[in-house]
Amino acid sequence: MADSELTRHLRSALPSEAHKGLIESVLPTLIDSIAEISKTLRGSQHVSRAGSANAFGDDQLNVDVLAENRIRYVVSQCPFIMTASSEEDPIERSPQKAPGGSEHYTIGFDPLDGSSIIAPNWTVGTIIGIWEGKTALHQPPATKQVAAVLGVYGPRTTAIVALRLPGLDPVCLELGVGEDGYESTEIIRTAVRFAEPPFKTRWFAPANLRAAADDAKYMQLVSHFIQNKYTLRYSGGLVPDVVHALVKGHGVYISPVTAASKAKLRRLYELYPLALIVECAGGKAISPADGTNILDRPLEDLNETAGLVCGTAEEVDFVKKALLA
Amino acid sequence: MADSELTRHLRSALPSEAHKGLIESVLPTLIDSIAEISKTLRGSQHVSRAGSANAFGDDQLNVDVLAENRIRYVVSQCPFIMTASSEEDPIERSPQKAPGGSEHYTIGFDPLDGSSIIAPNWTVGTIIGIWEGKTALHQPPATKQVAAVLGVYGPRTTAIVALRLPGLDPVCLELGVGEDGYESTEIIRTAVRFAEPPFKTRWFAPANLRAAADDAKYMQLVSHFIQNKYTLRYSGGLVPDVVHALVKGHGVYISPVTAASKAKLRRLYELYPLALIVECAGGKAISPADGTNILDRPLEDLNETAGLVCGTAEEVDFVKKALLA
Repeated sequence: MADSELTRHLRSALPSEAHKGLIESVLPTLIDSIAEISKTLRGSQHVSRAGSANAFGDDQLNVDVLAENRIRYVVSQCPFIMTASSEEDPIERSPQKAPGGSEHYTIGFDPLDGSSIIAPNWTVGTIIGIWEGKTALHQPPATKQVAAVLGVYGPRTTAIVALRLPGLDPVCLELGVGEDGYESTEIIRTAVRFAEPPFKTRWFAPANLRAAADDAKYMQLVSHFIQNKYTLRYSGGLVPDVVHALVKGHGVYISPVTAASKAKLRRLYELYPLALIVECAGGKAISPADGTNILDRPLEDLNETAGLVCGTAEEVDFVKKALLA
Repeated sequence: MADSELTRHLRSALPSEAHKGLIESVLPTLIDSIAEISKTLRGSQHVSRAGSANAFGDDQLNVDVLAENRIRYVVSQCPFIMTASSEEDPIERSPQKAPGGSEHYTIGFDPLDGSSIIAPNWTVGTIIGIWEGKTALHQPPATKQVAAVLGVYGPRTTAIVALRLPGLDPVCLELGVGEDGYESTEIIRTAVRFAEPPFKTRWFAPANLRAAADDAKYMQLVSHFIQNKYTLRYSGGLVPDVVHALVKGHGVYISPVTAASKAKLRRLYELYPLALIVECAGGKAISPADGTNILDRPLEDLNETAGLVCGTAEEVDFVKKALLA
């Protein structure tokens, strides 16, 4: 592979011989898959239902299946990805292939998040977490999930990539994904970073707002944001909603768990990768049920779900107090 | 021009010899410009500020200028468009060219709506209104604005097109805009239509929610939607927010005018085209200041602004009562 600007940047920011395969094969391969999914979406004008339901009972769209297959294909090609599971197929499977040396990675992914906003042509995304070793189960997420990738399919195709390797400073990049994949991908920003206070504009994204009808604390919290003139941005797509905060440098995303509304975000396929990215950008990601960091609790079952509060650290702390008071 | 499926459909739905130029030249030309703007956006990874401000004082992004130029170019090529003005250049200008016979149209457009959500890569859009005659000033909008086009730049490129020609049933289509423009554009739906009650899911999009901090009626209205478990979708882009309601078949968009927050939507470049599309889909579009239909009031000045409530008719009626009580 020729040395792109991006490869050179990553090599210099992450001089770890022990993760060479991650930087020079796993990441390029996954970014190629994002470029491919982008092309697939662009050509999928008649977004129809595939007529099947995934393991969580969601309706599956044709494009979900296509995106899943794109990532499964690149997984079969990359010698370092030994295990993969996804929201569409939540079983850790090991494709048969020769291992690429001493590096072994496991990926957990949501191939296409945001089914409900595909028909109106709103921005949707892909979420991928990359773990050291052959499983994500019973591992400490904060250290074993070493990288995460968000693919963002909008007017352009962009990606947020975070890496936190042992002994090295965390990295969080924004990339412009080229039509031809990794080789034509540019760096938009080398340091995606939440701003420090004071904030010029403050944003909030209240997910599952219907839950506020039956939960006084959530309703009070939403009123607080309105009274304090936070700007509302809520697309209903987890990737665009969190990416909005990352790109603007401020924001808080709240997906509460209340008596009437169950936790519905998947830990492995959604929460862990988002939490790593938010932490690498200087923000926080916690569970609204108990206020613990998302990355502090290992996965006991691939299908586990939870709520999420993430974004600017001081906003997350405020929400934690408000919801758990 | 070869007869595409779309041309044949429009000819059959709108058998008006008096508007042949509109259907066979103006619309195809404008859809070509939407395909071109889509390509420009896809290649604009480094979305930087152009350093100039438009006539309304907004910061202009490079991509705004590029989109403006794309539409100005096609205007210069189409023999039937005699006058054009835009949010970026709000003066009705007549490009020098030979007229294309007895049909004369004026267009008013917002080349790229949603500047604030371009950086995070959320869906944005183009808004175009097409008027019979050589000016939009002092004309009855409900009859003289005969067509409108929304370009939607997301994972795909789509468009909503509405036509209401004298003596004919209104038409509202959803199109999948092809990479090569009009010739490769497909019909997604021949009849975009708001659903009739009862509604399975109900959506709301409260713009300028900060205004609710100082306006008890707006705050009560928002509480009403939450308590009644409407689903929130609010991107902050006028095109994606209204298109969400059109594609889902239900929704209400509210951009109120309160003591502390001025009307900020442009009548000519935003409100009139959106109102025509919403009405052609069976919905309503009113001014929150007095409850009148947006299309009932002629334009006295190209720079006029107002608020907007639009979408499902019975939701719009409810909001009207709530805000004007």
